[in-house]
Amino acid sequence: MAQIVTLPRNETGIETAIGILKQRFGEQLQTGQAIREQHAHTTTWLPNQPPDAVVFARSTQDVADIVRVASEHKAPVIAFGTGTSLEGHVNAPAGGISIDVSQMDKVLKVHPEDLDAIVQPGVTRKALNEYLRDTGLFFPIDPGANASLGGMAATRASGTNAVRYGTMKDNILALEAVLPNGEIIRTGGRAKKSSAGYDLTRLLVGSEGTLGIITELTLKLYGIPEAMSSARCTFPDVASACNAVIMTIQMGVPVARIELLDTDSVRAINAYANLNMPENPLLLLEFHGSEASVTEQAATFGELAADNGGTEFEWTTDAEARTKLWQARHDAYFALLRLRPGADGVASDVCVPISNLAEAVTRAQDKATELGLLAPILGHVGDGNFHASVLIDKNDSDECARCDQYLTFLSDLAISLDGTISGEHGIGQGKRQSLTKEQPSALSTMQAIKRAIDPDNIMNPGKILLD
Amino acid sequence: MAQIVTLPRNETGIETAIGILKQRFGEQLQTGQAIREQHAHTTTWLPNQPPDAVVFARSTQDVADIVRVASEHKAPVIAFGTGTSLEGHVNAPAGGISIDVSQMDKVLKVHPEDLDAIVQPGVTRKALNEYLRDTGLFFPIDPGANASLGGMAATRASGTNAVRYGTMKDNILALEAVLPNGEIIRTGGRAKKSSAGYDLTRLLVGSEGTLGIITELTLKLYGIPEAMSSARCTFPDVASACNAVIMTIQMGVPVARIELLDTDSVRAINAYANLNMPENPLLLLEFHGSEASVTEQAATFGELAADNGGTEFEWTTDAEARTKLWQARHDAYFALLRLRPGADGVASDVCVPISNLAEAVTRAQDKATELGLLAPILGHVGDGNFHASVLIDKNDSDECARCDQYLTFLSDLAISLDGTISGEHGIGQGKRQSLTKEQPSALSTMQAIKRAIDPDNIMNPGKILLD
Repeated sequence: MAQIVTLPRNETGIETAIGILKQRFGEQLQTGQAIREQHAHTTTWLPNQPPDAVVFARSTQDVADIVRVASEHKAPVIAFGTGTSLEGHVNAPAGGISIDVSQMDKVLKVHPEDLDAIVQPGVTRKALNEYLRDTGLFFPIDPGANASLGGMAATRASGTNAVRYGTMKDNILALEAVLPNGEIIRTGGRAKKSSAGYDLTRLLVGSEGTLGIITELTLKLYGIPEAMSSARCTFPDVASACNAVIMTIQMGVPVARIELLDTDSVRAINAYANLNMPENPLLLLEFHGSEASVTEQAATFGELAADNGGTEFEWTTDAEARTKLWQARHDAYFALLRLRPGADGVASDVCVPISNLAEAVTRAQDKATELGLLAPILGHVGDGNFHASVLIDKNDSDECARCDQYLTFLSDLAISLDGTISGEHGIGQGKRQSLTKEQPSALSTMQAIKRAIDPDNIMNPGKILLD
Repeated sequence: MAQIVTLPRNETGIETAIGILKQRFGEQLQTGQAIREQHAHTTTWLPNQPPDAVVFARSTQDVADIVRVASEHKAPVIAFGTGTSLEGHVNAPAGGISIDVSQMDKVLKVHPEDLDAIVQPGVTRKALNEYLRDTGLFFPIDPGANASLGGMAATRASGTNAVRYGTMKDNILALEAVLPNGEIIRTGGRAKKSSAGYDLTRLLVGSEGTLGIITELTLKLYGIPEAMSSARCTFPDVASACNAVIMTIQMGVPVARIELLDTDSVRAINAYANLNMPENPLLLLEFHGSEASVTEQAATFGELAADNGGTEFEWTTDAEARTKLWQARHDAYFALLRLRPGADGVASDVCVPISNLAEAVTRAQDKATELGLLAPILGHVGDGNFHASVLIDKNDSDECARCDQYLTFLSDLAISLDGTISGEHGIGQGKRQSLTKEQPSALSTMQAIKRAIDPDNIMNPGKILLD
């Protein structure tokens, strides 16, 4: 398949570094094949390129020690959280050492008055919210998978709540990170805003482990809303659904979630969850606020939906009914896979200005049909972000080639519609070529920064930038 | 006074570059003393260090041409918008060429459905909102001065609305900028979110013209709220006011503005505007939303204020009454100056976690008293950000020394309370020394980035980083 990244290996350097680290870390360092392959797991169709060793770091100092040795011997290092990224971020195309931070899983401090928490990078989003349960606070970013917060920062993750709460870039106040030379730096601080120097926090967020390894995060928290309401509405076509969304956002309704499911996705969920929603494009919404406010928000949306041809509008504040509604969305990926038993799902995401969303979705659907592919679409439509899950037989090389063609089409389509090739999955290995099309003029500056911070290219080589 | 930055001048390079630019730009290039001094205007107590020439750029290509010539001859270039920055950002300590972008003042495109606008850097925030008047949309960031949007981006400005709408970093989708080598780059795009590569947009925002000159901005817009309400409440002390704010924010009340005025500030405004508010700490608030929602928000705040000893709570949705309430806040700086006729105001700002705000304000007040200085405090208290305006006689060297001492104390205090030396004014010349205390470990990375992008240090030398 396309986009296989091959890089030269520095055999001697890697071997020497692992030898030294074995002395230092003993059983914390593992070289078994299963564990190495597991650390190159990509949740996608990219081939598995295992590292030569995995070190389970237990502290920032561990990470710094590993990186210092690796740096001295020019051996690649790849940070690993939960391995749920989707573009081959944890693959080791030049070999090297995977630094697994999953044991750095402590919530170090919660400041309820300041609505912030300091966590280690291996804390997962669900673990953090579990820890916060009795405080009345929560961390809103939800990319679907129970990813580690370090990994979510490194890939600039977002998800269903982003339309209201933003993405990881908006919810990190400060970072601690180990640079490619082994130095430990702190960026930002606990103040809610700052204009003190270059924004290194935002530079590290989304840098996919190529500039530094995140070892601590200071995150923004939010009060759990007094009330939540959920709603769903069916539309005759994607364009009508998008228009309802545009009006809702223009009106300033502070929607917390607004998800689009295309007809194929609704069909899949109906079958999977034994529901009988009309097999037409569907919007699923959630509103957060006071009791009065969530009622008002749902009602306002209902009116705008009706103005745009929406039918079967239902809404509820009942917790059980809400959970049922959203369970369907959360299970969507598994439901989609059932549309074609035995198939693998290749997930991609793009994001466009919302006025171009209907066109983007429609053209993507048409292209899939033209190529004979089944590629249902789900979208975080409030942001213009949508996911296509291509259901393929990986052993069918012709089908794989068509899937490749579809993914390239999708990226080119997003660029042509003033959008981005990746709303939330990152670049990794899979989208490096497309990044050169989306950001042609900015690429040399990205490269200059990479060279300045990581002159030997030891941090996650073969990701984001073409070499 | 402290913090005077002196740098060596490259006489030959500057002279040659100006000669070439004079040929290219004719009357667009000016060298008169008045105009040069005006372009080093700092709205503060830093000495005026005029550039050797001012070029009025009319296009991105003009800016690129100027920078290319300057780069070739290693002559400094300093971007200039409206000159309303507060830390000597537009000073020319090594001489060179001021690039005035105020004539690049076109709103290039508004996309109402996508809630974004593309503007040239010389458009001021008021001009943009004037332009948007008939669209039902607005751009919320309001740093007080009618600054240019390019300058606001370069200094990562914010202001009274930041608690709800964020700062410039949160409201810029994309930038066009001229790099120190004259290359024109585009960062970001119109999609509402992206995980495509390094976040160069956020790197340029707040870089104070030291990495690139911003020549175009794509900004987020918002629907003008259906309703607004304003409220004010008096508190027995700063701590009670802060506690009311903490509870309001924890409750998730989406306050749009929440300003703290200390007793001196209230006294000044009473005298200036002929009001008779109780001379105690005061909170001024604004709520945005639907009619029902702004009523509910004001009522919720009223209850929390009362729980914290607040009195004289008043609120209104009446436009005229609201304007009157906020006019007092907007006139505060001039009102403060009247507290000591003939004095100059030296404005500084810091930002701390909100749980430390009462301590920060109280200790700052005590320090001013100890030093015999009059330094009223106003704060964007929802973010923990506050301003101290020291009223001094610039001809009294002893008083100036004490003012210096106070400002250093304020920065050190903010750092000791987990805060930042600059919430929204930037670093410029005035706070370079303090930045080394706040971000000691991150500084070498900032320097590495600066060297990688601007190896000859021609872009706004002597700002942010010590040389």
